[in-house]
Amino acid sequence: MKITKAVITAAGRNQHTLPLQTLIDRDGAEKSVLGIILEEALRAGIEEIAVVVRPGDESAYAAVAGDHAGRLHFVYQETPLGYGHAVYCAKAFAGHDPFLHLVGDHLYVSRRESGCAHQLVEVAEAEACAVSAVHATRESLLPYYGAVGGRRMPRRSDLYRIETVIEKPTPTEAEQRLVVPGLRAGHYLCFFGMHVLTPAIFDILAQQIELAGERGGVTLSAALAELATREQYLALEIQDWRYDVGVKYGLLTAQLALALSGQDRDEVLSKLLELLAVRELGATGR
Amino acid sequence: MKITKAVITAAGRNQHTLPLQTLIDRDGAEKSVLGIILEEALRAGIEEIAVVVRPGDESAYAAVAGDHAGRLHFVYQETPLGYGHAVYCAKAFAGHDPFLHLVGDHLYVSRRESGCAHQLVEVAEAEACAVSAVHATRESLLPYYGAVGGRRMPRRSDLYRIETVIEKPTPTEAEQRLVVPGLRAGHYLCFFGMHVLTPAIFDILAQQIELAGERGGVTLSAALAELATREQYLALEIQDWRYDVGVKYGLLTAQLALALSGQDRDEVLSKLLELLAVRELGATGR
Repeated sequence: MKITKAVITAAGRNQHTLPLQTLIDRDGAEKSVLGIILEEALRAGIEEIAVVVRPGDESAYAAVAGDHAGRLHFVYQETPLGYGHAVYCAKAFAGHDPFLHLVGDHLYVSRRESGCAHQLVEVAEAEACAVSAVHATRESLLPYYGAVGGRRMPRRSDLYRIETVIEKPTPTEAEQRLVVPGLRAGHYLCFFGMHVLTPAIFDILAQQIELAGERGGVTLSAALAELATREQYLALEIQDWRYDVGVKYGLLTAQLALALSGQDRDEVLSKLLELLAVRELGATGR
Repeated sequence: MKITKAVITAAGRNQHTLPLQTLIDRDGAEKSVLGIILEEALRAGIEEIAVVVRPGDESAYAAVAGDHAGRLHFVYQETPLGYGHAVYCAKAFAGHDPFLHLVGDHLYVSRRESGCAHQLVEVAEAEACAVSAVHATRESLLPYYGAVGGRRMPRRSDLYRIETVIEKPTPTEAEQRLVVPGLRAGHYLCFFGMHVLTPAIFDILAQQIELAGERGGVTLSAALAELATREQYLALEIQDWRYDVGVKYGLLTAQLALALSGQDRDEVLSKLLELLAVRELGATGR
């Protein structure tokens, strides 16, 4: 199985301007959030990228895509029927191929040059099945994520066969259905915002979208729960860092994380100390 | 003299997307850089604001102006003939009135609720003349700024009558022409990016633009040097902080400065410490 397509969703009401924001990447170059996400995909061997947008956003996106604009296909989510529906909009683009799926409001900082998506794509190609990136997450953070239950695969310690998927589980649901043998107590495997999906996801989403009707609100997690019952579907535990730029101070945190793990680390650390020193002097009126 | 008009320049080739970036202001609310600058002007009592833009940028600017979009007038700089020319483009908007001038890539953090522009406008109205905000700046930073020479006014310690203006002076020029009696040794009064100007500036700019012709590149400093020979023109020394969001990590620094002097100070300080702790653990591979 070879993965050469990626689908980035960026049509959410509160998310659609985030990919247009400018940050400085780990290499010290100024890029849009979209540009950084595109490069994460390209480092994973992706050749063609569909971005699911609200109609009208495409020109602003193309403008900030830089050198990568030529690889972009825009797919429109005409009505805001939820995240699952946004992924479904890329059905024609994906065709019969598996694809990498990233969200337009998350940035990743990896310990490795090759990036998080690269690790995920490598495993999906080797195992020839759908794989979601997951992160061992404290119970107190369950209200923010989709979480999975399953069993560790025999060959490697960071790979799990997914049996259950629950979106934002309660602690009781998590304890009853999502405990993963071998994981630290009080921790669960939560989605990292990065998946390799097989075309089977579109049939499942089509059914769920039909059931939901105009009410909308179909989650990707519900479709992934069904996917786990139909075919082999794995979770790859990733040790790297994910930053949701859509939360308050999310852009600031992501920028600091990129800078502190990149080539400008010393420059930014000293700016930070200078600023803290000046602010403290300012606070005392000197 | 009453000042109710402001002119914001935002047509520079490398600056025109900066006002569109999103930051969180001191009050904890998410705003565009443009929105924060507009509020600086409005807190100073300004009622009508002209933004000098490159043709085609106006809809993006209006979209991020939020509640203040109704107060905006867009003025077009059709050809990029320099900063002085950008200010000149607002001649028809200003008419015969004095006006506050701000640049679209600087943010200010004031010790006072009312803001830096408010202090400047207050002095300009009281003295009924042009006034530039200046900041006592180390000699080593002279290559980045326009600087002024002059004498302290008799009544207050932070007000100077400007006699000379030089854009990016060499240390020798500064020592010969810009030493200001009473200022700390090795320090000069450099522009803070904020001025109240009288309509006389347009006549001076018109002459200089004609002289420069298609070569362009007319600076505001050259026109201000001429203004100082024609009418009373003062400098107000401001103790607050200015952040140029157009330099590398300028947005990051400005965001940190806003957050650390605003209501979310404790939240951001703890995020900062958490991030530094995690990155240090990360760096050792744990």
